[in-house]
Parts: sequence; C-alpha cells; structure tokens
Amino acid sequence: MTEPVRRRGRPPRARQDAGPGMRERILDAAREDFAERGYDKASVRGIAKAAGVDSALVHHYFGTKEQVFAAAIEVALAPALKAPDALEDGPLEGVGERMTRFFFGVWEAPATRAPLLAIVRSALNNEVAAGVFRKLVATQLLARIAQRLDLPEGEAELRASLAAAQLVGTAMIRYVVRAEPLASADLEWIIGRLAPVVQGHLTGP
Amino acid sequence: MTEPVRRRGRPPRARQDAGPGMRERILDAAREDFAERGYDKASVRGIAKAAGVDSALVHHYFGTKEQVFAAAIEVALAPALKAPDALEDGPLEGVGERMTRFFFGVWEAPATRAPLLAIVRSALNNEVAAGVFRKLVATQLLARIAQRLDLPEGEAELRASLAAAQLVGTAMIRYVVRAEPLASADLEWIIGRLAPVVQGHLTGP
Repeated sequence: MTEPVRRRGRPPRARQDAGPGMRERILDAAREDFAERGYDKASVRGIAKAAGVDSALVHHYFGTKEQVFAAAIEVALAPALKAPDALEDGPLEGVGERMTRFFFGVWEAPATRAPLLAIVRSALNNEVAAGVFRKLVATQLLARIAQRLDLPEGEAELRASLAAAQLVGTAMIRYVVRAEPLASADLEWIIGRLAPVVQGHLTGP
Repeated sequence: MTEPVRRRGRPPRARQDAGPGMRERILDAAREDFAERGYDKASVRGIAKAAGVDSALVHHYFGTKEQVFAAAIEVALAPALKAPDALEDGPLEGVGERMTRFFFGVWEAPATRAPLLAIVRSALNNEVAAGVFRKLVATQLLARIAQRLDLPEGEAELRASLAAAQLVGTAMIRYVVRAEPLASADLEWIIGRLAPVVQGHLTGP
C-alpha cells in the first residue's frame, strides 16, 4: 500500500539492501531489457536502473553483461531444459509424443513463451548471445538427451539435433513469424503429425 | 580504369541517369543495407546513398521502404522460391530427397546464403518484414507446393509447412546459430536423414 511509484534516477538506499529476492529482481529486469532492446542495446546500467539498484550490485552478483545474459537465459530456458525428463517419464516408444507435447506446452504458455522468444531473437542476432545459447543447449539439453538414447554417442546428439530442428522450426513458423496455416493450426493435429517424426529421429533405424 | 573511387555525398548527375541496371543497383544496395543494419535501421536515404542515387529515384522505382524491402527479399529469395520445381522434376516418391537436396544447395552456396540469412533475421525481428516474408512464402512457396500434392487443399499446405519447418529448423541450427554437432555434420548424412522425413510430410499417410 505504501510502496512508492517507481521513479527514474537513483533508488532509495533501502531497496538496494533488500537481500533475498534481489538476484531474482535483477534477473527479471535483465530478461525484460534483453527482450525489449535486444542483446546489443541492453546494458548493465539499464538493467540496474530497471531493478532499482546500482550497476555495481549487478556486477557484484553476475559479472559482465555477457554473464548477466547467460544467467537470464538459463532462468528463461529452465522450463525448456526439463525436456530430457520426458525421456524417463515412460517407455522409449512413447518419447516422441511426450517430448513433442512437452515442447509445445512450454511455447503455448504465455508465461514461458515471451522469455523464450526473447532468447531466440537474441541468439539469432548477436554472436555473443548465440554462443551462450549454444553452450547451454549443448550441455543442458542435447548431451542429456543423447546419453539416454541407445545409440553411438556422436549419432545420438546428431539425431537429437534433428528432432530439435523439427520442433524449433515449427515453433519459429507458428510463434515467431506467425505464418499461416501453421500459426492457427490445431495443436493436437500438429502434435499428432510431429510425434512420430521426433520418435523416428530419436529411436528409428 | 577511370572509374572514380566511390565518395560520400551526392553522386555526379551522370550516374543517376544510368538507366538499365539502375533497378538492380538499388536492389543490391537495399539488400546490403537491410542485411547490415536490419529492417528497423535501414533507410531509403541510406540505400540511395549506397547506390549513388537520389532518394527520390528509389521512391520512384519502388515506393516506400516496405516496398523496397519486399522487392529486395523477392530477389534474395528467388533461388529458394524455385523449390516447388523439385516436385515436377521426377516421380512423387523422390520428392523428399529432391527438395531436401535443393534446400541445402541454396544454403550451402555462399552467394545465396548471405541474402537468405539477412531476410530470415529481418523477418524474425520486425513485424513489417515478417509480414512481407509471410506473404511471399505463402503465395510463392506453400501454395505452389500444395497444389501439386494429391491432398485436400487445407491439409496440403499444413503438411508442406511441417516439411518446411524441419528444413528451416535445421538451417537455423546449422547456419544461423551454428550449434554443434549439426554445424559441422556431414551434409550427405543430414540429407539422408531428412529426405524421408520431408517425403513423409508431403506424401505419407
């Protein structure tokens, strides 16, 4: 009730010492700044301002702009990074459908779609952002899926990448470019068509 | 030999009356400007300057910035828009491989990859650019592929879109984000894995 309207300029000292929750507040501000302005134009100063703290505090918690970005996209990607769990939630022959359903569940939810869009756009537009994205996807997603597949290591990651390509390409067309007829196609129809493709990539001959 | 070094500022009158080839010169400049600066920052003035002509001449040939962009991406997409021909170059059961091969041929050639990258980036970042891209892909690509498939009209375009999603997603990962292991995977291996997937989308049950 007595929370003051957010003002421009240096925030009152008290807010800087908020302690717990501070990290999350900076990450929220970072995600918004990267989403709205893109990686190139986003700045530690702008993020600090939006979070109502000193730039020094942002540097203290995270380091450089690249490190703030890495932390922000790790949080934003967190729901998507749970995808490998779909491999363990049931028999291997149902993994195509479970993973496809999981993937679109993340994209269809407004709360997770916006941060994902921001990350994808950044990764497509900036080399540093692309590097952070690549590393996270390789270590947290592909490697974890690959090690659960009964395939030679090199082939498992390649196959997981092609499955990801089918899903990511569909998401680009449906949610980012919003091209018809995919943009308003029935989700269950899409899942029905893609589940066997993902299954084939992961476990087919 | 006597061609003067290109200078900043208004070009000599003679170059403005070059006549034939002028349209192409403006389109080249436009493609470069959109590629380097993105749709938002590109301007008719900058394009005119790079082409060595008056802004009025750019407006005369093409109209608004949006219309210059539409013309430039139509030229840049021209190689990709020949994809529907792959449907007629042989029997329907080989279309998956022909289309996959054609698609990667366009992306692997440096001369066609750079303009494609520029368009894709613009379409992912700007709503006007996305609209131009959507319209071109819908009318020049999906509709033309769909009408050659032996499927109900609505389903044909949806299926063509899912085939496109598999190919476009792979291109995003391999050429735009350049994530391993797809970025340096053997092209023939990729084509061998994707051809049946594209075939299945276009002609499968």
